[in-house]
Amino acid sequence: MTKSSAGNFFEDFRLGQDIHHATPRTVTAGDQSLYVALTGSRFALHSSAPFATTLGYAAAPVDDLLAFHIVFGKTVPDISLNAIANLGYAECRFLASVYPGDTLAARSTVIGLRENANRESGIVTVRTTGTNQRGEPVMSFVRWVMVKKRDRDAPPPPVAVPALADSVAVGDLVVPGVSGLAAYDYIAAGSNTRWGDYGVGERIDHVDGLTVEEAEHMTATRLYQNTARIHFNKVLARSDRFARRVIYGGHVISLARALSFNGLANAFRIAAINGGRHTNPCFAGDTVFAWSEVLDMQPLAKRGDVGALRLRLVAVKDRPAAAFPLRTSEGYDPAVLLDLDYWALMPR
Amino acid sequence: MTKSSAGNFFEDFRLGQDIHHATPRTVTAGDQSLYVALTGSRFALHSSAPFATTLGYAAAPVDDLLAFHIVFGKTVPDISLNAIANLGYAECRFLASVYPGDTLAARSTVIGLRENANRESGIVTVRTTGTNQRGEPVMSFVRWVMVKKRDRDAPPPPVAVPALADSVAVGDLVVPGVSGLAAYDYIAAGSNTRWGDYGVGERIDHVDGLTVEEAEHMTATRLYQNTARIHFNKVLARSDRFARRVIYGGHVISLARALSFNGLANAFRIAAINGGRHTNPCFAGDTVFAWSEVLDMQPLAKRGDVGALRLRLVAVKDRPAAAFPLRTSEGYDPAVLLDLDYWALMPR
Amino acid sequence: MTKSSAGNFFEDFRLGQDIHHATPRTVTAGDQSLYVALTGSRFALHSSAPFATTLGYAAAPVDDLLAFHIVFGKTVPDISLNAIANLGYAECRFLASVYPGDTLAARSTVIGLRENANRESGIVTVRTTGTNQRGEPVMSFVRWVMVKKRDRDAPPPPVAVPALADSVAVGDLVVPGVSGLAAYDYIAAGSNTRWGDYGVGERIDHVDGLTVEEAEHMTATRLYQNTARIHFNKVLARSDRFARRVIYGGHVISLARALSFNGLANAFRIAAINGGRHTNPCFAGDTVFAWSEVLDMQPLAKRGDVGALRLRLVAVKDRPAAAFPLRTSEGYDPAVLLDLDYWALMPR
Repeated sequence: MTKSSAGNFFEDFRLGQDIHHATPRTVTAGDQSLYVALTGSRFALHSSAPFATTLGYAAAPVDDLLAFHIVFGKTVPDISLNAIANLGYAECRFLASVYPGDTLAARSTVIGLRENANRESGIVTVRTTGTNQRGEPVMSFVRWVMVKKRDRDAPPPPVAVPALADSVAVGDLVVPGVSGLAAYDYIAAGSNTRWGDYGVGERIDHVDGLTVEEAEHMTATRLYQNTARIHFNKVLARSDRFARRVIYGGHVISLARALSFNGLANAFRIAAINGGRHTNPCFAGDTVFAWSEVLDMQPLAKRGDVGALRLRLVAVKDRPAAAFPLRTSEGYDPAVLLDLDYWALMPR
Repeated sequence: MTKSSAGNFFEDFRLGQDIHHATPRTVTAGDQSLYVALTGSRFALHSSAPFATTLGYAAAPVDDLLAFHIVFGKTVPDISLNAIANLGYAECRFLASVYPGDTLAARSTVIGLRENANRESGIVTVRTTGTNQRGEPVMSFVRWVMVKKRDRDAPPPPVAVPALADSVAVGDLVVPGVSGLAAYDYIAAGSNTRWGDYGVGERIDHVDGLTVEEAEHMTATRLYQNTARIHFNKVLARSDRFARRVIYGGHVISLARALSFNGLANAFRIAAINGGRHTNPCFAGDTVFAWSEVLDMQPLAKRGDVGALRLRLVAVKDRPAAAFPLRTSEGYDPAVLLDLDYWALMPR
Repeated sequence: MTKSSAGNFFEDFRLGQDIHHATPRTVTAGDQSLYVALTGSRFALHSSAPFATTLGYAAAPVDDLLAFHIVFGKTVPDISLNAIANLGYAECRFLASVYPGDTLAARSTVIGLRENANRESGIVTVRTTGTNQRGEPVMSFVRWVMVKKRDRDAPPPPVAVPALADSVAVGDLVVPGVSGLAAYDYIAAGSNTRWGDYGVGERIDHVDGLTVEEAEHMTATRLYQNTARIHFNKVLARSDRFARRVIYGGHVISLARALSFNGLANAFRIAAINGGRHTNPCFAGDTVFAWSEVLDMQPLAKRGDVGALRLRLVAVKDRPAAAFPLRTSEGYDPAVLLDLDYWALMPR
């Protein structure tokens, strides 16, 4: 019997199963440097220790999405190594700041199983929690993936489809680390535009574009210790439907978030991700543009200095986002890579 | 009105205007690691903490050019996002060491404005100061760029052309951090050749060459949070005169400086940059070679242990620098990428 | 006389010569981040500070091979800049853990010289020791390279061929940093498979493959401050036998070691490298797969909690390793890149 693993197949999962994922990760300033170098992130909170400590943070926390990708990456060897598709995210909440020196670990609970009609695969839904070295949850999210069966004839499990919220309730948003925004430095942050300056329905073109190379997305995805094969293995990819390496969807999210600095510079934290769809694959050589739409604006009950903006973040490939492409009469515009729905925090 | 910015155009600048640039940056050991990995820098001062502390430094300072690129990068969104060309640098002085943990911020003052005769653009000259978290200046430099006008019919500002020094006076050179060179470790530094061993007019071939890939120069330039579009955006570049991404000129300077270790291993600090011209664009796939010429040698009045070498650093593409290419009868040799004039410090 | 160096030629070496290599390197968390991002390493010991400190380590030590590559890289400018081929390694022992903050220096002694019959080159054998800032040896290894002569007519040195061990004796293996494995966290490590679960002759397919890009291997090799020209210089490579850049063999070792996590997750330390052959060159665009064979298993006399596995680690290009390719009737299979023989440590 071989000592190596080909990953779990659909029939290996059990409803309620708890999986402790391997390789805890001590996040360092080196990880944050690489994150900046690979995405171009410019949010002052993650770039400047004085900016962060002025607001009450212990230090500059790492980018929320860097922490997310690390936790997500830990789940891949157990959950999605045999995934045909990553179908969706929901109920993602960021619960605590992650600082250089913190160690992230991840565990997942299987909360949904449904075999597909063709009996070749099924949908696995897991709730994943990322914790720090004190066992405190730093984030929690649900994702569902279509996973191959090893054996078509393996009996299907009872159908279990979890009820998931369309969006994270405003009352469940957490503002970790901030003692107060009185000293928020708008010059350092790069913009005077605050929460109240936006309006529901407003759309923002983030102007710039980033062309992605194979070396960049693979380096980013390995940084997260994400082992999904389709990102790294040209030989394997040849027999895949796209016949080439596909960029980790999370890297596209990070690029779009980094581009969104131009127009959302004061969206200093991501509080939650309500959902997201990778509507088209992204390949090396593609140039990623982005635009945002304000879907909702809510004050936070417990603090008058921070407001929540619910934003649609759309990544577009190979053409400027000025025309805000999203859908055509036939569905998503083929140029649209990502349709993400998240809550950002902004000073009021 | 859109919340995002297309950057300043020529008519947006005012003489005497002060601009505080966004996104202060806490420099870390991760930044220095990336700098080494992307440029191949091997100067002992920046590589070895014991080497540095033996000379009186608090720790190993980061490469001078890493600090320069970070400060420069902060100015791009405000100064040169709509630049047609970066025309020159002058009066660049390095004033204090930058250590991991220091936070760099940048501000610029507009010291020159001159509209071009075609009324399509004008020349903006700024003096930029980089400061650390204590507000101490760590560097100061002047640069001038040709910036597009948004509106051809906008009225021209009064012509203001600042008087700039041809070179930084020796008396203005600073030797930050060094308490004394008595313990300078020539073995660790990689050479026994000292200041007095060079002669004015001497030329040095730095022998090696580095081929640059798209992923490398974009990663470096994002590390500096430099947002100049032409480096990152293949789609945009198609309508540019070169129809492709152009490598940040500062990356070429860094590669040439790293190559110059072979022949100038004891040029342990850059004290000043007198001027520089990016004489031809550098593209991915080009191989960068370098050579140096000693333009001047000056002792430092206040300390007998350090001498200043004024050096021309020339970067050449796609052929060895052994023949010291620089000019032809028609101007710069087409293979020459960079003609930089700087002051280096060396033990006597 | 030029101040730059073209490196040593065969006739520049003397038997017994001691060479102190330049540019000591303070290893940082940034180096470890880059190592993970460039290789995909997932061993818990190097990833998680709590995992490491639970076993008695002062902190998470950096990957053994990262330390090896840095020490090796320091020797290149003096030993192998004019190498035609890196012929082999032997007697490589890892003697102390390397932590972020440690400063590595390297020195080598020439222990063998033999001119080739064609008088164009000769074989130089050196023993290299890497030390930390306290002067403690952290590793020691022998390597031999075929080095060009500058002058064919230079007289040959007396022939000296050192006697080298076929493998490092089990009694010479060191288990640095570990106070005890009682608290070893198998969940964090990613596997329950221990030393006693393996058997001599057992082969393990490591399943996954990594496609390598030019930017990646050059970034890794520069991180190690390795200056061997064939890795970096496309123009120079044109006149080389392969007419293209060749990937640093050490990068292939690192990729294969990282892949071997899948099947050898508890091989938490490399204790020694008995020997290794780079049987074919690796180029950008190649996809690296790997498999291992258990060559020997030995308990350690001084501690009952750790066992040593002697492993063959084979890297294969452009096809899965499931069929364990190694040799054909004509020698090494052309798809085999690396045949490495090393001792790993594993909990019993």
